[in-house]
Parts: sequence; C-alpha cells; structure tokens
Amino acid sequence: MAIAFPHFLTSEKPAVVSPSTSSETQIAPAALSQDELKKIAAYKAVEYVESGMVLGLGTGSTAKHAVAKIGELLRQGKLKNIVGVPTSKMTHEQALSAGIPLSDLDQHPVLDLAIDGADEVDPHLNLVKGRGGSLLREKMVEGACSKFIVIVDESKLVNHLGATGQAMPVEIVPFCWKFTAERLQGLFEYAGCAAKLRTLNQTGEPFVTDNGNYIVDLYFKSELGDLNAASDKILRLAGVVEHGMFLDMATTLIVAGELGVCVREK
Amino acid sequence: MAIAFPHFLTSEKPAVVSPSTSSETQIAPAALSQDELKKIAAYKAVEYVESGMVLGLGTGSTAKHAVAKIGELLRQGKLKNIVGVPTSKMTHEQALSAGIPLSDLDQHPVLDLAIDGADEVDPHLNLVKGRGGSLLREKMVEGACSKFIVIVDESKLVNHLGATGQAMPVEIVPFCWKFTAERLQGLFEYAGCAAKLRTLNQTGEPFVTDNGNYIVDLYFKSELGDLNAASDKILRLAGVVEHGMFLDMATTLIVAGELGVCVREK
Repeated sequence: MAIAFPHFLTSEKPAVVSPSTSSETQIAPAALSQDELKKIAAYKAVEYVESGMVLGLGTGSTAKHAVAKIGELLRQGKLKNIVGVPTSKMTHEQALSAGIPLSDLDQHPVLDLAIDGADEVDPHLNLVKGRGGSLLREKMVEGACSKFIVIVDESKLVNHLGATGQAMPVEIVPFCWKFTAERLQGLFEYAGCAAKLRTLNQTGEPFVTDNGNYIVDLYFKSELGDLNAASDKILRLAGVVEHGMFLDMATTLIVAGELGVCVREK
Repeated sequence: MAIAFPHFLTSEKPAVVSPSTSSETQIAPAALSQDELKKIAAYKAVEYVESGMVLGLGTGSTAKHAVAKIGELLRQGKLKNIVGVPTSKMTHEQALSAGIPLSDLDQHPVLDLAIDGADEVDPHLNLVKGRGGSLLREKMVEGACSKFIVIVDESKLVNHLGATGQAMPVEIVPFCWKFTAERLQGLFEYAGCAAKLRTLNQTGEPFVTDNGNYIVDLYFKSELGDLNAASDKILRLAGVVEHGMFLDMATTLIVAGELGVCVREK
C-alpha cells in the first residue's frame, strides 16, 4: 500500500528516505512488518533530538522504539544532558529502565520536542490518540512542546478523523459514566455515533486511566464535520475530562511505509 | 442592604414575599441572620416541589435547608413519590438521613427540578459555584434538570462574575497541577488573575474533590469579559476537568434579603 495521497501534496516533494539511510540494515521493503515500519519512523524522529533538550516521551507501540533509541544514544554518549518528560506511567517505567533522566511539567513547563505515535493522522496533521489510554497526559505534555513529531506507519493515515470506524476515545469521570456516555452519543447522533465504555478484556471491568478515570470510545458511521466545533461540544459536557482529538498540535509527521520514510513539516 | 438592583429590573415588579407567608414565625427583618435568610430562600424554593418529581439536591449551607425541608414534608405525607439525585457525597448522606429516596443520573438522566445555592449570581442568572468543592457533580445534575432554582441570600448578588475578588473554582486533575494552575493564570493575565491550589486548613494538604481531583481557585482583579469565551478557554486546557461558572443554566432565582423574598424567572 502506498502512502495516502492527501498527506503529501503533489506540489511538495516529500523527503523520501530509504530505510537504508538509518542505522538499520537494509531490508527489502516487502519484508517489513508493521512493527519494523514503526521502528523506522521512530528512529527517524530521534535524529531530531539534540543534546541538552527537554523531551516529551510518548506512549505506545511506536513511541516505545523512540524511547529505547534515545536511551541507547545516551548510553553510547552520542546524546548528553537529555531530560525526558513521560506521558504515562508505562513510559515512565520504560524510560527509567532505559536510563533517561526524568522530570515533569511542573519542573519543565516548556519542552523542546515531543515524539509520539498516533492512531489516526489527517492531511492537516490533526490526530486521534488515546487508543492506548494515555490521551490526557500526552495532550498536556505535547501541548507544552515547541516541536511535536508524530511517528506512524502508513496504516494510520486517514482522510477524515473518526471516519474509519475506529475508536475516538474520550476520558470521563467515573461518576455516572452511563449518563455521560449517552450524552456523548447524543452529541453526534448526526454522525451515527455509538459510545462504548472501554473495559478490560480479562474481567470486563472498566479500563481505568493513569488519572483514575474511565474511557468512552466513540464510533462514528460518517464524518464529524468541523473538528474544532466537535472538540468544544465534547469539552463543554460536564463529566468529560479530555478527548483524543489532537487538533493543530503536531508540527512534523514522519510516516514509514513500504516505499520508505516520508517527513512532512506543517 | 437592599437587594442589588440589576437582578430585578425596574420594569418588572419583583414578587416580594414577606417571611411571614412562609411557615416560619414572623421575625423582624433586622433580626435575621444570614443563615435565616438562606433558610427562607430554601423554603420558598421547596414550594415548587410536587409529588412524583425527580429532584436534583444541591450541596452547601443554603441547599441543606431545602433538603431538610423536603425530608420533613415527606415524613408529614405532604409530598409523595419523590426521588432525589444528590450532587455530592455530603448531600447523599444528609438526604439518606432525611429519608429521601435516592437515585442517580444513570437511572434518572432527566430531572424535573434542582434546587441549589450559588456563590455568586449575576443579573443574567449566570452563577459561580463550587466554593464548597462540588461543582462537577452539581453541573452534571443541574444540567439535566428541566428547571433549576438558585437560592441565595442577597450577599451573593454581583454585577459581574469573578469581579468581587472571591474565588472562581476550577477542578483539575492532580497530575502536574502546578503546570495547569500556571496555564490557568496565564489565560487571564489581562484580568490580573492569581491561581491558588485549594488546601485543607488543618494540614495544608490539597483539598480533594469527590472525584479525586484538585481545585484551583482563580482570583481576578478586574472583569473577565465574555464569560462563554472564558469558559471555552478554560475547558480547552488539557488537565482541566470542569469550572465553577454555570452559564445559562439557572431558570429561577430566589433571593432572601432584609426586605423579604424575591423570585425571578429567567
């Protein structure tokens, strides 16, 4: 599958970088798994990291490759004086193990660069995030960064957020969650919205976020329309803590696909 | 002190009800304490309660008089088939003791009437609430009511919300609360905003809401300007759960003052 067209306009020449220019051994494109593509995108993003930076460390299956690589470069002495601000308890643990010195937003309210994955990316670099459950801390940290690089494999590129039938997560307070889920569904009746509480596979108990809240996943049958208007409607509902649309936040997109790595600056 | 002018336009004749028309013994106005005024407003609001209603039960020093009175009327058989939806754990306890059958928003997503106090009321019946710490559950419950009666003594009437130098509460997630408090303060720099974490007097530990969150109180030196715009700015900050401005929610205002009780329908 080629990289979806609208993300890389015909009038711009995407910086296509063959995987062979990274530190990876060259592999025939057809042999690359989704995880290998994620790793290629992550390693490309780590090329933007410079010694002395305060870094937002993302969460999830793509971001973990970036965190591991940053730890490796620190150990090798190729990077120095890095401070990491993790976006989840999980990333906190991984970064600690990788030997990355850590801090938080209270100590470092302005960050140089964040690197994180996304569940969906539209042609305007708006994102859906949070299928892994860390959307609130990610949004706090990534909103405080001068530069925010999103790293994805090409399967995450979409024309319209929410129009893929995949979950758009909303973090809500546990108090009367059914009521809040119904109100969320009601907001987007025009888009055929279904709201479902996220549960743990093993027990059917509600999934609980790092902040002690629940996640309601919204599934849409058609387009949401104006995303900023949709965002405000969700945020105005009492009981909602945050949602997974990251609008106008990403500054750089790195996509790994079978044809190589594409980088797009916003 | 007479009731502040802008809340009762000269062109309308306020329904002034002497305290003697309530079930209270007549008391010379000058002898009424603030708590007695609160009780008068609360009892007046309970006159709107009818058998069979689903009621939002407010929280705080004024609302508690309404909850007690509803319990009394139920015990006397003057009200029947009432279901109460409490707006806090504290009100839940009080209503249980008062013998009011209780439910929640999951079971009763539409309510007939809510009665609650407020910290400030402007001439458009916009409110500041939450100095008692229950703003989120209050907003969820009162936003689900067909009719929302606000009961206050006359000291709560203001010309502009937030311009009295008193706290405007914002419920935030505990994660990196200093960062969020600074961003809140930064939003309203033009109004001389100071943001302070609410703490327990005894220990200096953060006050924790019923939802496990913190409260940051915003203090302004001048007017906020457009309240709806201010509301959206606050809600768009990742880390904010809810704020204490209740805009365009109250349908009826009952004010008890030295001159009697005034009722204003919106």
